[in-house]
Amino acid sequence: MTYAPPLAAAAQDETRELRPKFDEHGLIAAIAQDADTGDVLMLAWMNAEALEQTLASGRAVYWSRSRNKLWRKGDESGHEQHIVDIRVDCDQDAVLLKVRQTGGACHTGRRSCFYRIATGAALTEG
Amino acid sequence: MTYAPPLAAAAQDETRELRPKFDEHGLIAAIAQDADTGDVLMLAWMNAEALEQTLASGRAVYWSRSRNKLWRKGDESGHEQHIVDIRVDCDQDAVLLKVRQTGGACHTGRRSCFYRIATGAALTEG
Repeated sequence: MTYAPPLAAAAQDETRELRPKFDEHGLIAAIAQDADTGDVLMLAWMNAEALEQTLASGRAVYWSRSRNKLWRKGDESGHEQHIVDIRVDCDQDAVLLKVRQTGGACHTGRRSCFYRIATGAALTEG
Repeated sequence: MTYAPPLAAAAQDETRELRPKFDEHGLIAAIAQDADTGDVLMLAWMNAEALEQTLASGRAVYWSRSRNKLWRKGDESGHEQHIVDIRVDCDQDAVLLKVRQTGGACHTGRRSCFYRIATGAALTEG
């Protein structure tokens, strides 16, 4: 699928058409949030195909920058993300997925990737 | 301030030191979340100086990619973000700010930048 191109400034903020603004690598940021608890689970990336598959399938599909391929979350780990809704931000360079998460979202096994709090240069888990 | 460099793989996931993994532009993604409601407010970017100022001052400071300068949220709009806590993700290429937001986080005046839901290629506000 080819998306319509982004519009200029305020028109992009107010359009009712999905016009994702991909970066120079063809990616937009995707935040996954637990639809029930509100916890932010992870930040990942989508290309046009990942976004399209996510919208069409109701499962979160990302672009893995480390593996350089589409990554249907949970296909290997079993830790699937089922979409409740998908939001775009004002300039459409980021999406927010509200999901029902099976198991941990983080590859470390933790529920969320954001398991450490920074206090200055020190991190504590909690 | 200069941060210690990222570690390899699992060591980065488990370190108790802040070792942000900046991208090729010297930036990490920063998600701002309302500390009280759990609503995700916006996604922005930080360079090392923005992160350091945020940690030191308790106010969210970003790097504006469009204006190419530090952006202390609220200095122009009055819509400040006061930090409740700052979390880093597993590989430390993203931070999650829990904030108390004055006014709207979005430059459009809305509370959150994520005010449109995507259903296929159509967006609805809600």
